[in-house]
Amino acid sequence: MICGLLGVAHSPRALAKQRVDLTVIHGTLVTMDGKRRVLEDGAVAIQGDTIVALDSSATIDSMYESSKVIDARGALILPGLINAHTHMSMSLFRGLADDLSLDDWLHKYIFPAESRYVTRDFVTWSTRLSLLEMLRGGTTTVADMYYFEEEVAEATKAAGMRGVLGETLIGFPSPDSKTSAAALAYTESFLKHWKGDPLITPAVAPHAIYTCPEDLLKDAAALARSNQAPLLIHVAEAPFEIEQSRHDHGLTTVEYLARIGLLGSNVLGAHCIWLDQADIQTLAHFGVGCSYNPSSNMKTAAGSMPAVELLSAGVAVGIGTDGAASNNNQDMFEEMNLAAKQQKLARMDPKALSALQVVEMATITGARALHLERQIGSLEVGKKADLIVVDTTAPHATPMYNVYSAIVYALKSSDVRTTVVGGKPVMEDRRMLTLDEPAILAKAAQYATSIGASFGPGTK
Amino acid sequence: MICGLLGVAHSPRALAKQRVDLTVIHGTLVTMDGKRRVLEDGAVAIQGDTIVALDSSATIDSMYESSKVIDARGALILPGLINAHTHMSMSLFRGLADDLSLDDWLHKYIFPAESRYVTRDFVTWSTRLSLLEMLRGGTTTVADMYYFEEEVAEATKAAGMRGVLGETLIGFPSPDSKTSAAALAYTESFLKHWKGDPLITPAVAPHAIYTCPEDLLKDAAALARSNQAPLLIHVAEAPFEIEQSRHDHGLTTVEYLARIGLLGSNVLGAHCIWLDQADIQTLAHFGVGCSYNPSSNMKTAAGSMPAVELLSAGVAVGIGTDGAASNNNQDMFEEMNLAAKQQKLARMDPKALSALQVVEMATITGARALHLERQIGSLEVGKKADLIVVDTTAPHATPMYNVYSAIVYALKSSDVRTTVVGGKPVMEDRRMLTLDEPAILAKAAQYATSIGASFGPGTK
Repeated sequence: MICGLLGVAHSPRALAKQRVDLTVIHGTLVTMDGKRRVLEDGAVAIQGDTIVALDSSATIDSMYESSKVIDARGALILPGLINAHTHMSMSLFRGLADDLSLDDWLHKYIFPAESRYVTRDFVTWSTRLSLLEMLRGGTTTVADMYYFEEEVAEATKAAGMRGVLGETLIGFPSPDSKTSAAALAYTESFLKHWKGDPLITPAVAPHAIYTCPEDLLKDAAALARSNQAPLLIHVAEAPFEIEQSRHDHGLTTVEYLARIGLLGSNVLGAHCIWLDQADIQTLAHFGVGCSYNPSSNMKTAAGSMPAVELLSAGVAVGIGTDGAASNNNQDMFEEMNLAAKQQKLARMDPKALSALQVVEMATITGARALHLERQIGSLEVGKKADLIVVDTTAPHATPMYNVYSAIVYALKSSDVRTTVVGGKPVMEDRRMLTLDEPAILAKAAQYATSIGASFGPGTK
Repeated sequence: MICGLLGVAHSPRALAKQRVDLTVIHGTLVTMDGKRRVLEDGAVAIQGDTIVALDSSATIDSMYESSKVIDARGALILPGLINAHTHMSMSLFRGLADDLSLDDWLHKYIFPAESRYVTRDFVTWSTRLSLLEMLRGGTTTVADMYYFEEEVAEATKAAGMRGVLGETLIGFPSPDSKTSAAALAYTESFLKHWKGDPLITPAVAPHAIYTCPEDLLKDAAALARSNQAPLLIHVAEAPFEIEQSRHDHGLTTVEYLARIGLLGSNVLGAHCIWLDQADIQTLAHFGVGCSYNPSSNMKTAAGSMPAVELLSAGVAVGIGTDGAASNNNQDMFEEMNLAAKQQKLARMDPKALSALQVVEMATITGARALHLERQIGSLEVGKKADLIVVDTTAPHATPMYNVYSAIVYALKSSDVRTTVVGGKPVMEDRRMLTLDEPAILAKAAQYATSIGASFGPGTK
């Protein structure tokens, strides 16, 4: 009595179908491949963690038999967004202190709060809160540097997020290392522990030139090089950094980093605001990637990154949110929107940075900045299946004449309905599959009560 | 058998309760009143279109019997947001043309598209699309200027949005008026038609000094004055406007408007970017309100408004989205976020504009800019019941140490769950009650197909 169904399943044509684990079908496929192909009613076939085919939905449907099908009707299928710089563990400090001078912000709030609250448990839950926010908003890869990075990595892997993660190395006692030597040893062990992990790329993360003595910077560079690991560092974020570097070394930040041998094609510089033309050429020469963090740069009044000049010089500039203590969202749609707008205003040129360029920065160019462009950043056969399904039916996204314009200027993180990392759905139709949202929010509320009582005026 | 229930209903205490139409209860009440009071577990009682009481939920519950109760648990209760400048009828052009020079944008896309498509029907549906987006995002009052403003007003009133609306007066043939005289006559009839309407405040709206001859500006000012109507006008948006004004009149835009007698306490100037210190004093002297439109100013690279200086001089500066052709969202949460960040970066000072100041601009100061502060802009007894319920339980809004920081830096338009205008719920738990969302989106899709075929490259 079910012969009709069996008949279909056993027809010669059906038998010829290749089995795959997942197809995402009937969406507008924005590949970000070399030709920047956009395919109406397109589909992706995924086996394990890898994309095995992209084509029209009709073709994919005729060629593949899939264990699971995600319907992307009324939506875009995009490469997952790449957050090139943040500190996930700071999300429990979101909104604790705003609208302050850098000095007051750091010394009256952030440093005391960190010294009092940052423990393994805090880092675990804060990271989970960040992962929840980011996976909900379509981020599938995150570059992160903070303390207790082992806990960060555990939480990141458990959530199914891809991460380039580094323990912050800093020239004074940190919440988890009394000395630089201890922090370096921690990093060495961290690199060994996570080597070869399919989701986590362990990195070396000296904080900045104004917080790390030269020996520490050199040791960090050597450690990264000998382990073929990425190196994450804050570069030229504030004018005082350049002034101090000129005073101490007679060099700009970038010149100094070049002189001590830290720059290389494994380096990602966060911020990179206060650069001169020679610095830009130096970054391009060494193949350094940069992270542009427009919200943070605006909110902290750090300055305007010469993103357009960096891109013109061939530097891979990704986009980052920075941590929730200085943004206060980790929302790549918001950052894309701001990236385009901030560059246009800074240059008084509405053509300064196009929507397409900004989508590139959040995907394939961001992957290049993280030196992961062979694995992620575009939807192509053989790459990791990191993708998001973004609903385009909301009033604020209607009509849609151009996909890149819609992504940068109209769509929002709340339009993301499904997030897939390495072939695994981590959010489907806005339901979180890898994170226990109620538990995370409850734990965040507990921490907030305690932190707010010590530092905040609460809701006044 | 239901005596228990009746017993409660007829108890002496219950009998003493005053009947009201609506209470919104159990939210964190952010009043924006003179003392900027914030009340945990607060409630609002509403009779007709007016707030009759604000107090703790326990007090409101003990004093009022309400026909309808909206539970605001886990949410803020805020005054509805005031969008001080937009062109609702342009939402069907959202994303049609971006990243272009002003000349190309206007002459290759916007002007031809307007001349071909802007009809009564287009304006009606485009306005409905904008209203849908704005009511969903917590805007309860909108200042708008465009063509076929009768249709805009009909759609606005039908949607239950409050509006200050003006037919654009311009010195060349427009989609609905062959001559300036005809447009003035249209405005005169528009003012009469809508006089005294509880939701719609009819206004006079000369486009700008570079598009209106002096006679038209003077006639517009006289018409507004004799009808005690607001006057909406674009002021000092671009450098070319100031250069042209200096060339033609030997005066800045503001000096020229003062000289011809247009400025007064009924005027709202949109943009107000290219001002000198004397201009700022002049605007303050005349009691002119201003609309700061950060997204539009950044995206079109128009410049940075001296918002901080204007506020310091006592000018009421509201916040506006501008039309969807130059933003491309009409999202007051996005604008608040950008307002704070853009001013901080422009002044290289993280303290330049605080979260509280920005919330003021989007509520009570925006009401002052529109000269409606006696009716709206704060939650106070006797004011119109325009309020929104904004969920604070999303990961991106967790934790919340300070309500103003949360509103400006963390919360999003997608967190708005209920919108009430003049005591009437227009969206409840994200369900639209006054607008037929599927019909609007279907009509938008029809228009988009036709417009995209003529002007757009579509999704390429």
